[in-house]
Amino acid sequence: MSDYLHESFLPPPRLLMGPGPINCDPRVLRAMSYQLVGQFDPAMTRCMTETMALYRGVFKTKNPWTFIVDSTARGGIEAAMVSLLNPGDKVVVPVFGRFGLLLKEIAERCGALVHTLDLEWGQVAQPEQIEAAIHRFNPKLVALVQGDTSTTMCQPLADIGPMCFDMGVLTYCDATASLGGNDFRTDEWKISAVTAGLQKCLSGPSGSAPITLSSQAVDEINKRRHVEAGIKAAHHTEATGSRISSNYFDLAMIMDYWGEERLNHHTEATSMLYGARECARILLEEGVDNTVARHKQNGDALAAGLRAMGLTLYGEQSQRMNNVVGVYIPEQVNGDRVRQQMLEDFGIEIGTSFGPLHGVIWRIGTMGYNARRSAVLQTLASLEQCLLLNGLKLPAGAAVRQALSVYQ
Amino acid sequence: MSDYLHESFLPPPRLLMGPGPINCDPRVLRAMSYQLVGQFDPAMTRCMTETMALYRGVFKTKNPWTFIVDSTARGGIEAAMVSLLNPGDKVVVPVFGRFGLLLKEIAERCGALVHTLDLEWGQVAQPEQIEAAIHRFNPKLVALVQGDTSTTMCQPLADIGPMCFDMGVLTYCDATASLGGNDFRTDEWKISAVTAGLQKCLSGPSGSAPITLSSQAVDEINKRRHVEAGIKAAHHTEATGSRISSNYFDLAMIMDYWGEERLNHHTEATSMLYGARECARILLEEGVDNTVARHKQNGDALAAGLRAMGLTLYGEQSQRMNNVVGVYIPEQVNGDRVRQQMLEDFGIEIGTSFGPLHGVIWRIGTMGYNARRSAVLQTLASLEQCLLLNGLKLPAGAAVRQALSVYQ
Repeated sequence: MSDYLHESFLPPPRLLMGPGPINCDPRVLRAMSYQLVGQFDPAMTRCMTETMALYRGVFKTKNPWTFIVDSTARGGIEAAMVSLLNPGDKVVVPVFGRFGLLLKEIAERCGALVHTLDLEWGQVAQPEQIEAAIHRFNPKLVALVQGDTSTTMCQPLADIGPMCFDMGVLTYCDATASLGGNDFRTDEWKISAVTAGLQKCLSGPSGSAPITLSSQAVDEINKRRHVEAGIKAAHHTEATGSRISSNYFDLAMIMDYWGEERLNHHTEATSMLYGARECARILLEEGVDNTVARHKQNGDALAAGLRAMGLTLYGEQSQRMNNVVGVYIPEQVNGDRVRQQMLEDFGIEIGTSFGPLHGVIWRIGTMGYNARRSAVLQTLASLEQCLLLNGLKLPAGAAVRQALSVYQ
Repeated sequence: MSDYLHESFLPPPRLLMGPGPINCDPRVLRAMSYQLVGQFDPAMTRCMTETMALYRGVFKTKNPWTFIVDSTARGGIEAAMVSLLNPGDKVVVPVFGRFGLLLKEIAERCGALVHTLDLEWGQVAQPEQIEAAIHRFNPKLVALVQGDTSTTMCQPLADIGPMCFDMGVLTYCDATASLGGNDFRTDEWKISAVTAGLQKCLSGPSGSAPITLSSQAVDEINKRRHVEAGIKAAHHTEATGSRISSNYFDLAMIMDYWGEERLNHHTEATSMLYGARECARILLEEGVDNTVARHKQNGDALAAGLRAMGLTLYGEQSQRMNNVVGVYIPEQVNGDRVRQQMLEDFGIEIGTSFGPLHGVIWRIGTMGYNARRSAVLQTLASLEQCLLLNGLKLPAGAAVRQALSVYQ
């Protein structure tokens, strides 16, 4: 075995200004460094219950069933889909970026019949388009991404959510990249199921997926509630619906684990739970609306700085997510070389892109713990130097000056 | 919102001597407290590659495909099953405890046709029984649990693994509770797929599932290799097999993410990866065989101490796991009250039981960081006091004296 394997891993210092993950709030890392308690220790179950309460605040909901799935954000999406959808159920998915395509794929793997609303990357869906699709396909579920980092666009939901509710259609929203950095109102918008992750605006690491479920969603899921054979007792009754095809993502079972009876399912990922709880606590300490406003201000400052550098922003700015900005790579420079220089010489990560935008735009994030002035200004100052080193002509100092004016 | 929600969670000090999770090695907690790096940062991909190499040592394998699934151990089981099994495939599962029942259930949810070898809880399967089942059912896969903590028994695999291999049948082993504390030889025993968790003998928290796959398993999985639509490029070819029904647990995709092209799938759970890497590093630093021997010695000391107290051990001791001891609850005492007293007054957790053993035995673990003399002696000393407080007559001091003699 090579020598380096005998050493602990020590990560290099990085300022993570891509589309996520971003740097953790140090309080989250501290929380995750605490020693474990047992799975059914009263302290542990109290921590779980408190985490449920805290995420109700983050999701702006009164949903009793607000908890954590032990996987990355992607697993949260799958848990919602596989638990809500029976094979053969019909789903409408607006696709305007990579993560809409992911919703489509996951729904298909659940055996659902998926009708996509295919929009150009960079667009968002209009309520009329959703309405027409519902009339045409009569789906059980409309599944949408709020903030698709692949395009930096933010899907408005204030009209679509209540409309679907009134039409008797369930809604699922992937708020992984947007929650905490953009306005999100689960109850007011009547969204049936929402999932997220910690590694974007919540200032935590990837590996934990907060979820909230409306009573409609819970009823639907509990039609397929089963109890694991090895722990089934005489008093346990089960639903008549077919078993959910995943055990790990069976939300009926996970609710039984987070619920009063604490029926054992997986072993809760204690350190990630500690982290998830602290992420929510920090966010509520600042206040959800204040956190969103901070993301807006920092996103605006970043965008203003990039523009002042002479760069062109990607997409309709009025419907952009607060926490990530797309910017066209100037034709004169090699996008990957600039990113590499930013990382190697300045220790700052900015993002590349997927699909039709690959090589066309950079994506620069300012979210969670990094939605702050020093992070934005360091990024602009360093990017200016990298562009100058690559031969681009630009007005020296204009970016930082313009960004500062947004803060004043 | 209640006041306590404004405070960070501070876990009470506990000595975790149940069947897991157990206390983390402080070096693992330190590793997890380090700041993040980006998902494709050279430091991150190096960390992933080093983690693969380290787990080859832990699993005693040369399998190139040795990596981490971002879920608890249960998710690792599901990832192996759902990726190896097509609907309609035949599987043999020996069931001698709760986790055999879980393998059965997960395989069924994958749409497999499951034939169980139903043994009494506390037994293990004999090679002849497996052989007969293979002849009778001609399965694609034999799925077994090595250490089923629900009964504390350890399934011997040295004969069964090579036998299945010679008969052309794939093998899957759930080594969650046993790996690191009991002899395990992936290559020598010719096991096709093995998964584990960190929270038992590996001294880490739940939330990360190491996995190793033989070339036969990889070939089988890659028959259903697909690339996610949002990141698919012209040079990507796909297999002709049907899509694996889970996206999150699609091991073909996860291998593409851990492989040379680093095709984006989930966002790797960075903090859990840091922890998983450190768990393996610590184990290899001590040496796998030394770690197993330490578990054996501490398990023996614990068992000797319990016996000296006048208690009766559960199950055939020669086939017991090194890291967990089942002990009959004396008829004179209330098992749950003793456990509660141990936790509340002494800060020590011991385990209850599931299924037919519920209320019949306690399960006391000594594993990972807690497979050490001080943990064993504190547990014996405290249990002696609790039993005395509950009116049991026992030879004072005999347990610790007997345990100490095992160490000498």
